[in-house]
Amino acid sequence: MRTIDWVDGAVELVDQTRLPGECVMLRLRTVDELVEAIQRLAVRGAPALGVAGALGVVLAGDDRDAIARLRAARPTAVNLAWGVDQAAAHLGEGSQAVLRAALRIRDDDIAACLAMGERGADLLEGDGLRIMTVCNTGGLAAVERGTALGVVQTLHERGRLAEVLALETRPLLQGARLTTWELARMGAPHRLITDSAGPYLLSRGGVDAVLIGADRIAVNGDTANKIGSYALALGARRAGVPFIVVAPESTIDPATPSGEHIEIEDRASGEVVTFAGVRVAPEGTQVANPAFDVTPHDLITAIVTERRVIRP
Amino acid sequence: MRTIDWVDGAVELVDQTRLPGECVMLRLRTVDELVEAIQRLAVRGAPALGVAGALGVVLAGDDRDAIARLRAARPTAVNLAWGVDQAAAHLGEGSQAVLRAALRIRDDDIAACLAMGERGADLLEGDGLRIMTVCNTGGLAAVERGTALGVVQTLHERGRLAEVLALETRPLLQGARLTTWELARMGAPHRLITDSAGPYLLSRGGVDAVLIGADRIAVNGDTANKIGSYALALGARRAGVPFIVVAPESTIDPATPSGEHIEIEDRASGEVVTFAGVRVAPEGTQVANPAFDVTPHDLITAIVTERRVIRP
Repeated sequence: MRTIDWVDGAVELVDQTRLPGECVMLRLRTVDELVEAIQRLAVRGAPALGVAGALGVVLAGDDRDAIARLRAARPTAVNLAWGVDQAAAHLGEGSQAVLRAALRIRDDDIAACLAMGERGADLLEGDGLRIMTVCNTGGLAAVERGTALGVVQTLHERGRLAEVLALETRPLLQGARLTTWELARMGAPHRLITDSAGPYLLSRGGVDAVLIGADRIAVNGDTANKIGSYALALGARRAGVPFIVVAPESTIDPATPSGEHIEIEDRASGEVVTFAGVRVAPEGTQVANPAFDVTPHDLITAIVTERRVIRP
Repeated sequence: MRTIDWVDGAVELVDQTRLPGECVMLRLRTVDELVEAIQRLAVRGAPALGVAGALGVVLAGDDRDAIARLRAARPTAVNLAWGVDQAAAHLGEGSQAVLRAALRIRDDDIAACLAMGERGADLLEGDGLRIMTVCNTGGLAAVERGTALGVVQTLHERGRLAEVLALETRPLLQGARLTTWELARMGAPHRLITDSAGPYLLSRGGVDAVLIGADRIAVNGDTANKIGSYALALGARRAGVPFIVVAPESTIDPATPSGEHIEIEDRASGEVVTFAGVRVAPEGTQVANPAFDVTPHDLITAIVTERRVIRP
């Protein structure tokens, strides 16, 4: 199953807001439908957003306003803008050239995730590895295999994985809903934990490495990723556990010198005060809801891409 | 309103699992009813559990088995066992002496929280203070006023509080459900955040102090508190923000030399795989659910009790 693909003139993608209850494929024929799907996180994950951006340009044709709306749909995710730009560079060559460019991004992602999985697994030493991760960086965040969870998949295929500790990842619970679902499908042993339990369980010595994805990597190695990554980095540093970022080269943004230049998306309060329609805080409660945080490069042991291992 | 009290021969307490939707008073006439209320967190918070333990001995009469069950109902909470022991020491003097001892614990808590509030507020400098806190340490965790949130209340009464950032506190959301409810009742400005956002918002410079309660303090100052406290301590240290524990003297356990001797309660998986009653993870998902963590004393700026300020 592919998380996102081009099928018969439309973008098809798994509606991740319906998982793990139902696995529903959406068929999107316009840029506005795609932008709406991106903003409500029906499709998410840096690599998948890159493919979504590229395929969205195919839907847009020569409507420059639509392309601009698509490019700005999620400000922290550099891959979305990157995918848009890659495909849009071919607009002068006709619609078939744009489609070819978008499909190349899709195919490159499949190959890159396979390469990241092998490179990351090679980087870690030993067997019986216990891995901690946050959010969802699996096949659902990409096209076929994932980034950080792609490394987990390779470790599992090589018989070197003992257990994954998956953070539930409030507010939208991608860890609870998506990562557990993927790990169960691949038959990998795992336990779900609350986000706050991550740093504490690191201090108790039960984890060999933290593996996370990235939404944007600055030139100096500062990394924006799902909120909670920074707390894990602090916990990993204190516990002496390697903290490894796994992301494609396209996540490294040459226009961003350091983390302080990364715009952090402050999302709607409803994500925090309700869940699945159940209200959990009193009416009128104000909220701060940063969707991402920035981990300074000095807390990062290594960044694994499809081409290299960077030690910031 | 008192969170817990002795009324006409029974323990009356606010059922905190029903807040913020409803404010329901329970009337408990037996130890088993009280143990059940303690275990499902209808009553929680270290000082309130001390009063519950003492009043429970009044309900138990001379049933030593019942007293033992009550004492063991929540292993991490030293105040529960402490309250039981304080009242049980008077069992040889008749039921009226036991009741008098229990009511003295109640009255001492009311006075101690007032004293902690003033001592903690005196410790912090300046006006327009922005305070971060986790879980619920307000009047709902005690009898009338709280511990860490008692300091917030005193700051607010003195006109020195700008804002409280309250962590929602998964898995049971005491911050989202209870702390916001109390802050709204006292008219104190506040915003609710996910637990993972705490360390990150500390790194952004928007917080003047972290104030937390404690479930058990070891002799060397290591402090067990709600899961998430340790991550905030790491974030506060990196950001150079004071990290202050506010708890009554009874929370300091002379039988516990350091944090590694503190038993951490691993609670049921249902708390994690559901969110506000809605299932969020696939059927069969395994869970680790440590309810508390231990913050090493070197990360604690000060411990404020009703009698003194300790700098570990």
